Amino acid sequence: MVVKVYGPHSASAKRVLVCLLEKEVEFEVVPVDLLKGEHKGPEFLKLQPFGVVPVIQDGDYTLYESRAIMRFYADKYRSQGVELVGRTAEERGVVEQWLEVEAHNFHPPAYDLAVHLLFAPLFGMTPDPKVIEESEAKLLKVLDVYEERLSKSKYLGGDFFSLADISHLPLTYFIVNKMNKEYLIRERKHVSGWWDDISSRPSWKKVIELYLPPI
Amino acid sequence: MVVKVYGPHSASAKRVLVCLLEKEVEFEVVPVDLLKGEHKGPEFLKLQPFGVVPVIQDGDYTLYESRAIMRFYADKYRSQGVELVGRTAEERGVVEQWLEVEAHNFHPPAYDLAVHLLFAPLFGMTPDPKVIEESEAKLLKVLDVYEERLSKSKYLGGDFFSLADISHLPLTYFIVNKMNKEYLIRERKHVSGWWDDISSRPSWKKVIELYLPPI
Repeated sequence: MVVKVYGPHSASAKRVLVCLLEKEVEFEVVPVDLLKGEHKGPEFLKLQPFGVVPVIQDGDYTLYESRAIMRFYADKYRSQGVELVGRTAEERGVVEQWLEVEAHNFHPPAYDLAVHLLFAPLFGMTPDPKVIEESEAKLLKVLDVYEERLSKSKYLGGDFFSLADISHLPLTYFIVNKMNKEYLIRERKHVSGWWDDISSRPSWKKVIELYLPPI
Repeated sequence: MVVKVYGPHSASAKRVLVCLLEKEVEFEVVPVDLLKGEHKGPEFLKLQPFGVVPVIQDGDYTLYESRAIMRFYADKYRSQGVELVGRTAEERGVVEQWLEVEAHNFHPPAYDLAVHLLFAPLFGMTPDPKVIEESEAKLLKVLDVYEERLSKSKYLGGDFFSLADISHLPLTYFIVNKMNKEYLIRERKHVSGWWDDISSRPSWKKVIELYLPPI
């Protein structure tokens, strides 16, 4: 059964796509035109009642929320592809901790920066300099914690590549390559080395080659 | 080994405490005085570099982020106490989906309501009527989706009580009992029945009896 991934060009969907490639799960993509509001239309809302991408369909199993989808495939195919959640409950606990840190500490300011520095013109919004300044200040503090963590651990979740690292790929890519904010990563030795490592994985290279949004 | 839970009076810590009770794991609590800023002091920051509660210590294993801690104990003690993540990868996927919905759709507006309606005076803040109005409007829409979901499923994650339900307990309790916003729950038949069910569990009753904050 080939997994269908709706909305592959969104940042969140890229987590799912990298995870599927790392787990060697076959998929096909179903584009969703966010600029035309297709994700808020009645057909899409039957799949995802909050009107956001991504969603997957795997036979008659439908699931949304990118981090939940990643966990599902990490669980379903434990012995296939790369092990992405650790081998013990203790290892998985640490992966889960850093996945939560990504969701609650890293993602909000990084997302706000992306919206105001990259996507505002596409959505007819005026970028807010105050939001940009505050988001950057928050991100600096978060990345200081990451620098400390990565000075002691090769990856965020431990000495192995995991869902916690995957989850950072889409927005860190924008920070480094699209926002002119590369210094946030490059001024931190261990964060910088970690970024070079995780962003050079074939899975990520394939995803940005195939599914970058037009910005 | 008795698990130490730091900051038991916080809303997020209550998720962890309910989970430990449901999993029949022994614990002791370590109060953290948030009003005095103890969570931002150097000793606490060694445990939790972002300066937030809860944190657990289980022997020499330290973990933070309430939803990660819940998952850890649900994994570590699969066959002890109540099964809280389902029996198959597919069941767990749905639990994870609704845990993510709680974190990203329910929690932010419910938390903002709690801050502005309940905690602002304690922190010397002036409540912002615009934030209150917008948060309530967001929460209404989220709860409409929950009503639809709970008309077809006994609990959010499936036909069994799970981490997805536990995660909603602390802030829904405030909505119903402290904010004068009980209508948000009571005007939705299935959400109301679900709330009566999950809030009458002995684990939750014990947690609010022992660890309510002084508001």
